[in-house]
Amino acid sequence: MKPDATRQQLAEVVRLVKSRGLKVDISAGQFQTVIGIIGDEKKIDFDQLRSMPGVYDAIRIQAPYRLMSRSYLAQNISVKIRSDVVIGEGNPPVYIAGPCSIESYEQLYRIGKKVKEAGAHILRGGAYKPRTSVHSFQGLGVEGLRHLKRVGKDLDIPTVTEVRSEFDVKTVARYSDILQIGARNMYNQDLIEEAARQGKPILFKRGFSAQIDEFLSFAERIVAKGNKKIILCERGIIPLGGSFKSQTRFTLDLNAVPVLRRETPFPVVVDPSHGTGRRDLILPMSRSAIACGAHGLMIEVHDRPHEALSDANQAIDPAKLGELIRTCDLIYKSINESPSPFSSDLINEKDGSQ
Amino acid sequence: MKPDATRQQLAEVVRLVKSRGLKVDISAGQFQTVIGIIGDEKKIDFDQLRSMPGVYDAIRIQAPYRLMSRSYLAQNISVKIRSDVVIGEGNPPVYIAGPCSIESYEQLYRIGKKVKEAGAHILRGGAYKPRTSVHSFQGLGVEGLRHLKRVGKDLDIPTVTEVRSEFDVKTVARYSDILQIGARNMYNQDLIEEAARQGKPILFKRGFSAQIDEFLSFAERIVAKGNKKIILCERGIIPLGGSFKSQTRFTLDLNAVPVLRRETPFPVVVDPSHGTGRRDLILPMSRSAIACGAHGLMIEVHDRPHEALSDANQAIDPAKLGELIRTCDLIYKSINESPSPFSSDLINEKDGSQ
Amino acid sequence: MKPDATRQQLAEVVRLVKSRGLKVDISAGQFQTVIGIIGDEKKIDFDQLRSMPGVYDAIRIQAPYRLMSRSYLAQNISVKIRSDVVIGEGNPPVYIAGPCSIESYEQLYRIGKKVKEAGAHILRGGAYKPRTSVHSFQGLGVEGLRHLKRVGKDLDIPTVTEVRSEFDVKTVARYSDILQIGARNMYNQDLIEEAARQGKPILFKRGFSAQIDEFLSFAERIVAKGNKKIILCERGIIPLGGSFKSQTRFTLDLNAVPVLRRETPFPVVVDPSHGTGRRDLILPMSRSAIACGAHGLMIEVHDRPHEALSDANQAIDPAKLGELIRTCDLIYKSINESPSPFSSDLINEKDGSQ
Amino acid sequence: MKPDATRQQLAEVVRLVKSRGLKVDISAGQFQTVIGIIGDEKKIDFDQLRSMPGVYDAIRIQAPYRLMSRSYLAQNISVKIRSDVVIGEGNPPVYIAGPCSIESYEQLYRIGKKVKEAGAHILRGGAYKPRTSVHSFQGLGVEGLRHLKRVGKDLDIPTVTEVRSEFDVKTVARYSDILQIGARNMYNQDLIEEAARQGKPILFKRGFSAQIDEFLSFAERIVAKGNKKIILCERGIIPLGGSFKSQTRFTLDLNAVPVLRRETPFPVVVDPSHGTGRRDLILPMSRSAIACGAHGLMIEVHDRPHEALSDANQAIDPAKLGELIRTCDLIYKSINESPSPFSSDLINEKDGSQ
Repeated sequence: MKPDATRQQLAEVVRLVKSRGLKVDISAGQFQTVIGIIGDEKKIDFDQLRSMPGVYDAIRIQAPYRLMSRSYLAQNISVKIRSDVVIGEGNPPVYIAGPCSIESYEQLYRIGKKVKEAGAHILRGGAYKPRTSVHSFQGLGVEGLRHLKRVGKDLDIPTVTEVRSEFDVKTVARYSDILQIGARNMYNQDLIEEAARQGKPILFKRGFSAQIDEFLSFAERIVAKGNKKIILCERGIIPLGGSFKSQTRFTLDLNAVPVLRRETPFPVVVDPSHGTGRRDLILPMSRSAIACGAHGLMIEVHDRPHEALSDANQAIDPAKLGELIRTCDLIYKSINESPSPFSSDLINEKDGSQ
Repeated sequence: MKPDATRQQLAEVVRLVKSRGLKVDISAGQFQTVIGIIGDEKKIDFDQLRSMPGVYDAIRIQAPYRLMSRSYLAQNISVKIRSDVVIGEGNPPVYIAGPCSIESYEQLYRIGKKVKEAGAHILRGGAYKPRTSVHSFQGLGVEGLRHLKRVGKDLDIPTVTEVRSEFDVKTVARYSDILQIGARNMYNQDLIEEAARQGKPILFKRGFSAQIDEFLSFAERIVAKGNKKIILCERGIIPLGGSFKSQTRFTLDLNAVPVLRRETPFPVVVDPSHGTGRRDLILPMSRSAIACGAHGLMIEVHDRPHEALSDANQAIDPAKLGELIRTCDLIYKSINESPSPFSSDLINEKDGSQ
Repeated sequence: MKPDATRQQLAEVVRLVKSRGLKVDISAGQFQTVIGIIGDEKKIDFDQLRSMPGVYDAIRIQAPYRLMSRSYLAQNISVKIRSDVVIGEGNPPVYIAGPCSIESYEQLYRIGKKVKEAGAHILRGGAYKPRTSVHSFQGLGVEGLRHLKRVGKDLDIPTVTEVRSEFDVKTVARYSDILQIGARNMYNQDLIEEAARQGKPILFKRGFSAQIDEFLSFAERIVAKGNKKIILCERGIIPLGGSFKSQTRFTLDLNAVPVLRRETPFPVVVDPSHGTGRRDLILPMSRSAIACGAHGLMIEVHDRPHEALSDANQAIDPAKLGELIRTCDLIYKSINESPSPFSSDLINEKDGSQ
Repeated sequence: MKPDATRQQLAEVVRLVKSRGLKVDISAGQFQTVIGIIGDEKKIDFDQLRSMPGVYDAIRIQAPYRLMSRSYLAQNISVKIRSDVVIGEGNPPVYIAGPCSIESYEQLYRIGKKVKEAGAHILRGGAYKPRTSVHSFQGLGVEGLRHLKRVGKDLDIPTVTEVRSEFDVKTVARYSDILQIGARNMYNQDLIEEAARQGKPILFKRGFSAQIDEFLSFAERIVAKGNKKIILCERGIIPLGGSFKSQTRFTLDLNAVPVLRRETPFPVVVDPSHGTGRRDLILPMSRSAIACGAHGLMIEVHDRPHEALSDANQAIDPAKLGELIRTCDLIYKSINESPSPFSSDLINEKDGSQ
């Protein structure tokens, strides 16, 4: 719409769009209001739109993730988990930590207390574990969710846990502050949409063989359901070939961080635990993630790795987490002290000019 | 169990296993009965099992897909869709064909009639389309299922369609003879298990970045639910890198056919339409699939590609399908006429001897 | 040039092109002569070319492999090794077989005799082995070449061997009928050009992570040196990820066969031994290769695999080779008997019409 | 050898090893001397070795890169280019910068002066360009080498340039301080060995589809020729699949940095220009490279990108380079100020203990 468009002109456009069976998404900025049209664009005549009073222009956004794109949403978006935990540009790094699986109230409380003391802001823990083998431990289910909610309350720390089945989405939403969609479900459009409908923040992990465009196209389904509380998470891609001994199970693709930040205004976090699968790589790759602009980290922590029911070899202990947080905060500071603050780089270079 | 084990001895073993919270899967062969134990193997004492009367031996099958493996199921398994449509070793190739999306009763009937005349045995058509973009056509849903069922009946041809959401599984099972789990849902363990529970044959597609072991591990979830009507489907993997013009979208991995056949007794079909994404590759790759031992093919067919709502450039026309079927049947015949029939190769070479 | 262009008009164009520091490649067809211009196309004014007498049109061929492309060379090209061994469209499949490494005169003669009796047309054997580890057997070098030449003569069979170092190219060309450039040297442009200069046929293997376009672009260097005796060879690409047990070391990419045949008129052979790395996959994948249009196969054969100095687990024995050749000849026959012969498919479908 | 072994005992062992046709590599440490045996280990009796006077133990190092491994070379190795330019642990990051191609003396001098002022320590510039297309600019050759040597002298800055052909190795070694082996030649064992023989430092780039083990196995060939002046360089691997718009041409694999540092004591640098192929990713990924422990960076710089003859879109301008160096130096400082310095992490965690 034009800067001086009236509310009635806006309402006219919305009415026309809806009459064609399409949905609208309205972004009211300081100077201008943008109306996003969701659905099959062939159903509407763009010339007709352009000729309506108050309309500045009508353009097709070609990317399959138009609602996520910087051309549609110009300003950085932060996701507020609670008043003192905000993820996104301008806020210091947010640390999400905890065990891979919730094994008992005691285990979660014990580890949760330590990660909070080490500086973590959000507690993670899995109740529904995605597993390759049907013969492995699959998580405690609802019992685990109850532990998560109670520990979150007892330690006064927000929580995140994965939802795997559409049938469980409503239940998980009752127990956890953030819903995680795991890498294996990145293409599961029905689960994504069901989770989005709950209105809670979604931590959305990139599939391990997904292109950035695909990742954003599936995140788009969350916005298309009216939920803009999206935290994107890079967690490693499948590397090339072979079975060599020093190969990591996954390759953390840190290129994704600046690419995602350029494409979309939503916050980006990195999971170096799953992204490398090797405990000794977590510290160096965490440093790297913050250095290239990640807004937070998700780290698996276990104080007794030999007792862990899953993924023991990619968990660090709470002391190591404290050290990791101190170093990453130093790196974040040195980036922001440097003459060219990161965010302007990203935006200004968009056209390739320097 | 020993060849001369009594039914009571068998019942004793089953009772013990169940008392440990584990499930059993019983395979009664001509000479011997094998009891598969499903669940956490740490819960049971294998030495105790071995010492029970009638027990021949108790061994751990290490592979995460033990219930699918040839070491557990020695004989080839065929999946009977109806009396005259059987997929698996010893049966001539089965051809599954039809449009990508069901667009109307008329469209499906018109194409279904032509593919049946061309020699196809099963009609395919999508009602719930997995799509990258939320802004694309997503399928007709239940309306499409109704067309599928009616056309299947009117043309007297069995049907297959994809199920995408757990919420829809029961509905799809009412309308279609075979449930398809698509490549994007290969890791969706909850959907797989819900589909398996319906008891109908499952056409299970390999994920486009999945190893053979992963593919079989997720198929294992179907058997673990007691459903052995599994048809495995190779449909292309993500190729390496770049954006060169002659690159195919996916790379059909035909190596998967002999590897799958060696690992598991279940039938294997190939989808060269999605596996290559290029119409001109469908005929040569179909020939290759039959030549390396595939039990069937799944081919997208459209008689008016320019009107198709999805995937037009990977559909062939019905006349081409007829030609494809004739040539593939010839190749199947020449393989079976050759001095060393295919199946014995696969089995005998298992130990690498020649 | 126009069909009625004079030799003088042709000479004028050639003179102009050369005056700009560019090279020419002249293809005289039955009706028309095509002048290929090699080098930086910015150096010449295409409008000026078009305005010259006798010139039909001047077009830029965008592909980096313009001299290899079907748009430049319309007719299929066969490579004649000797009067009775011709590789390419219209000729029955050519079988290249022999041991991975030449170990002695006796070993090569013994195996060579058996593969010839089994139906092979060309004898292979490595004298310079590309090896990952500096601590492994690297081949017999010149001594191996001498064995190869003598065995080739004694058994009256043409030979092929790999050349690895630029320094050795002239020597290898003196001893072998065909020069092989291995997969690891596909990007080694200096070696390729030095080999091309010898004027002998080149068996050029695709790099294991190379796109089809890259493969053809490096083959283009052979044509650019004036050598059109090129046999392209698919030998497997690096698969995705992991270290699962049933994974093959490489994935034979048979899609490459019809894609290469569409892009270029040069013959295409397939090496299922290196392409799969598993003896039990050689027979099924050989069948598939012929079924999708390969002009020949390259197979590792050893009669005493346990004594082999390299790659024992991907060699078959001579009896198996005989069986492989019989079955592949049957498949070749059934393809050519079928109503739509393969070659016309490839050409006619080029524009996507059916 | 035992700590108190005599020189004569050492000489005896060396004599025995050489008598078997094997080579030796002697590492004299402060307390102990280690004799590396190079060649086929089957040729020597390890029990016999163990029984010789002065011998502490004789063990097989299984990795194909035993001479590169930390189990063979315990202490970090730095490569001294000249007294004030040393690459390796304990030294601040070294910056290698300059144009992709040398285009003229003036161009190289102009850019060289600016990168030196911006803080670069080594000047890069290509005279022999590895190119996909035979029709592209291939470099100035010897003329370029002359410019490089003269500019290096005139600006008093060490130089590095790529050597592509075995025939050119000796020439390049006369003109450049460091010889670069490019990614496409990582598997070119003959070129690697010929370059190693010159005795100059080798900047050795990882192939874009190479596993870490393969990379080190080919670097091993340099050490096996007696040259320990090796700088390893991560420069991006081929990413998965597709042709999506926001995809980078390569994916910089920063996981390689800590993995390489754990496996080998040789220094590791990173090339984010080729590793991402996108100018806007160079700054963030440079920061990340230093943050995970890289010893230096290799950056393409051009002051007039629109005039560049190659790779213009991945070059930054000299002002940007200055900013990059300032920020990376800050990050290096904050890592080393942090309580747990990087190097000890890597070494101590080797066994997975914390």
